[in-house]
Amino acid sequence: MLEKIDLSQKVRKKDYKKEKDELEVRLGLLQRQAVDLGIPVAVVFEGWDAAGKGTLINELILPLDPRGFTVQSTFEPTEEEALRPFLWRFWTRTPARSKIVVFDRSWYRRVLQERVDGHLSRTQVVQAFDDIQAFERQLADDGTVIIKFFLHISKKEQKKRFEKLRKSRSTRWRVTKDDLERHKHYGDYLTATEDMLAETDSEYAPWTVVEAHDRRFATLKIFRTFIDTIERAIASAARKKGRKSAPGRQPRTKKASVLSKIDLSKALERAEYRERLKERQEQLRELLYDIYRKRLPVVIVYEGSDAAGKGGNLRRLTQELDPRGYEVIPIAAPNDLEKSHHYLWRFWMQMPKAGHMAIFDRSWYGRILVERVEEFCSEKEWRRAYREINEMEQHLSNFGTVVLKFWLQIGRDEQLRRFKERERLPHKRWKITEEDWRNRKKWSQYEAAVHEMLLRTSTRWAPWTIVESNCKWYARVKVLDTVVEAISARL
Amino acid sequence: MLEKIDLSQKVRKKDYKKEKDELEVRLGLLQRQAVDLGIPVAVVFEGWDAAGKGTLINELILPLDPRGFTVQSTFEPTEEEALRPFLWRFWTRTPARSKIVVFDRSWYRRVLQERVDGHLSRTQVVQAFDDIQAFERQLADDGTVIIKFFLHISKKEQKKRFEKLRKSRSTRWRVTKDDLERHKHYGDYLTATEDMLAETDSEYAPWTVVEAHDRRFATLKIFRTFIDTIERAIASAARKKGRKSAPGRQPRTKKASVLSKIDLSKALERAEYRERLKERQEQLRELLYDIYRKRLPVVIVYEGSDAAGKGGNLRRLTQELDPRGYEVIPIAAPNDLEKSHHYLWRFWMQMPKAGHMAIFDRSWYGRILVERVEEFCSEKEWRRAYREINEMEQHLSNFGTVVLKFWLQIGRDEQLRRFKERERLPHKRWKITEEDWRNRKKWSQYEAAVHEMLLRTSTRWAPWTIVESNCKWYARVKVLDTVVEAISARL
Repeated sequence: MLEKIDLSQKVRKKDYKKEKDELEVRLGLLQRQAVDLGIPVAVVFEGWDAAGKGTLINELILPLDPRGFTVQSTFEPTEEEALRPFLWRFWTRTPARSKIVVFDRSWYRRVLQERVDGHLSRTQVVQAFDDIQAFERQLADDGTVIIKFFLHISKKEQKKRFEKLRKSRSTRWRVTKDDLERHKHYGDYLTATEDMLAETDSEYAPWTVVEAHDRRFATLKIFRTFIDTIERAIASAARKKGRKSAPGRQPRTKKASVLSKIDLSKALERAEYRERLKERQEQLRELLYDIYRKRLPVVIVYEGSDAAGKGGNLRRLTQELDPRGYEVIPIAAPNDLEKSHHYLWRFWMQMPKAGHMAIFDRSWYGRILVERVEEFCSEKEWRRAYREINEMEQHLSNFGTVVLKFWLQIGRDEQLRRFKERERLPHKRWKITEEDWRNRKKWSQYEAAVHEMLLRTSTRWAPWTIVESNCKWYARVKVLDTVVEAISARL
Repeated sequence: MLEKIDLSQKVRKKDYKKEKDELEVRLGLLQRQAVDLGIPVAVVFEGWDAAGKGTLINELILPLDPRGFTVQSTFEPTEEEALRPFLWRFWTRTPARSKIVVFDRSWYRRVLQERVDGHLSRTQVVQAFDDIQAFERQLADDGTVIIKFFLHISKKEQKKRFEKLRKSRSTRWRVTKDDLERHKHYGDYLTATEDMLAETDSEYAPWTVVEAHDRRFATLKIFRTFIDTIERAIASAARKKGRKSAPGRQPRTKKASVLSKIDLSKALERAEYRERLKERQEQLRELLYDIYRKRLPVVIVYEGSDAAGKGGNLRRLTQELDPRGYEVIPIAAPNDLEKSHHYLWRFWMQMPKAGHMAIFDRSWYGRILVERVEEFCSEKEWRRAYREINEMEQHLSNFGTVVLKFWLQIGRDEQLRRFKERERLPHKRWKITEEDWRNRKKWSQYEAAVHEMLLRTSTRWAPWTIVESNCKWYARVKVLDTVVEAISARL
């Protein structure tokens, strides 16, 4: 999902100055409270070469009391360090109570650089992820707040920055041969990074991807994330100590940068639509028999904005299929029996057997969409859900299941047009309720939830496909294309 | 550590009847409270064939309200089940709120039978452990209480039971060819079981090994464990709901069955001692150079009863060694700086580099020994520590470190003799304090803590060696033997 992120976001100088001043004051205040409560904080900065780690770390620490933090730079392990297990040099540098340690690169070097360089066996990669998970869980259980930033720039931007640095004599030295070598393998690092984000994102040590093309935008995002996280930790620590604290609040809405980049004007003409639809439907019909013969399990998830056209899209997917080979599973609010189990239970009940295709019309993602926004579950529960969902999908994938997830997106105006049409046309009126209008008012909250979902649950083993759905024809063909290609690749 | 467990423990019929009646009443009461609070409970029974799973499950469920539980038997997966990921059939059978599900064999089949039968690749074994950990964590996070029993009998006992069953025509059918085949590979299963215990023991889903030679002993142990666990869950759930509940109490002291079996009369004569000591010390001296040349890291841990002779033993280990190659790290109570970090931090600071040997005189095990018994840390903290320690040692081992741990044990009478001697002899008087006498009074609490430590932290990658230390000479040679052999095997 990283390459889908909108990196063009900018903050104007004037706006920047104002918000930053305000945030800096809060930052100083929060640090004092955290010190008072004895909270240790570990901040990790990872990201591309030339993404501006140094500058951004500086921005973050300037407003802090210098007695309260240190910055630890992680280079190649020294000779001393290489003679010890890889976590040793990080364990020994973990923050004491009331202290902040900022890691300029970190233990993730192991699963990025060392992995891409081919220094690790497959078993060692698995072990490294296990070790990192245990390390962060142990610290978090002990009360350490862990904040992890990944500074993201595109390959093109990286190239541009390297070129600029090399032009001037005073900065030329900053671009090393290794940097240029790594730039060539940007794609390999991208894959490793996405694996890392998926494997080590947890409720107690979540990743924040920072769009780092615009320094001001990145600075503010880092400030806000830092402040939100510390505020929650302070509230929780204060609760534990029986002190009064401000009531927990919904985290600040973040700009939905994955969605803002997509091109909703994508469309198909009727003739092309008809032709491609027919062709793909026939291909899928044949593939479904292969799925059965080769005992391949397939799980397809439909999620999307209200009125994005899920139903019609899904019908086009299944129209030509042998009904013995697939099942459509509509998901509504859980019933009493379902409520009395873990929220994933009812989806487990429905998982297809090998050789079958299950299509979920809405899904377990309700937890981090509607249940999150409407507060049907606690914040703790939805924060935990990203990891639980990734684990479930990984389990499916380990078994050999093809997992495909579609997010159908329409623009806000288009939604309004469709809502009104539904009200106007008698045969569509049943489709629109008061609730739809209420949800629409929460557009930006939903957008933030969708953004976070796409970013944190798009994995190598279960990727999301964003389907631009202003044009229904385009959307239907895109889903069919994706399904046919993914399944063909696996047969 | 499984083969070290004392399986000879018996309960007399009279005592049994009385305690069981009392426990059954409490069981019924607790079930009603758990129902009231909506607590789901998952109970796992694993163990050797013929260990008496059926009988013991029956004992447990008889006092329960039959509307509140079901028993799920786990056989070979059915055709339907085999077509889905291995956790599917367990996810779908997880208990609803207020319900108890007893699993007669369980998801652990994957890492026992299927693993030993060679159906899994190494990667699949690692994945299976990951999947199981995630599964149990997800249930526990959702409020499910997980209780796991492993019913343990020796190979000899198993053989005896099979023979008895085969003698009678009415029971002959119960011993299958597969059973006998598995009996032959008892050793392989033992290894797989120890791995399983080490990899999947957690604070939220701990294992209890049940000595199952004597049905009455096993029944009472299962009852007590079940009751303790549910009581803790009820107290915690009640706290969350803001209800008053009885204050948390130390878990009932369990019989220290690992320790009760060891033969403290083991001894050496002076002449043999001298000869073997000298020989081993010289061997170790040479090995230490090899350790350096081959860059092998070695960690040795000394723990033991007060006055068990740790100091003298350790001196004999290092007497002939080149001081540049090893370091002795005495561990006392943590200082302020150390207290301001995770409790493992100060040990991480001291980990030896490759090519060196670090000998810890007392260690991170303080957390689950003295800190547990003296309540220097919270119950939550020491319960978490078993897993944290296993993870740390596994990390060391993945790096290639040889980790050896010695528990020096003396009898209670012998301790008294040594304490008195220390008081009598002026040059030994500094060794004895009021605290030693106080600790001695808590002998059985310490014994229970040691038992649990040995059982839960003796792993393939970092095994415990119990050193019978009533005879100091014997103890010193045993440690040297073990160290020399373990290191030789790795060079």
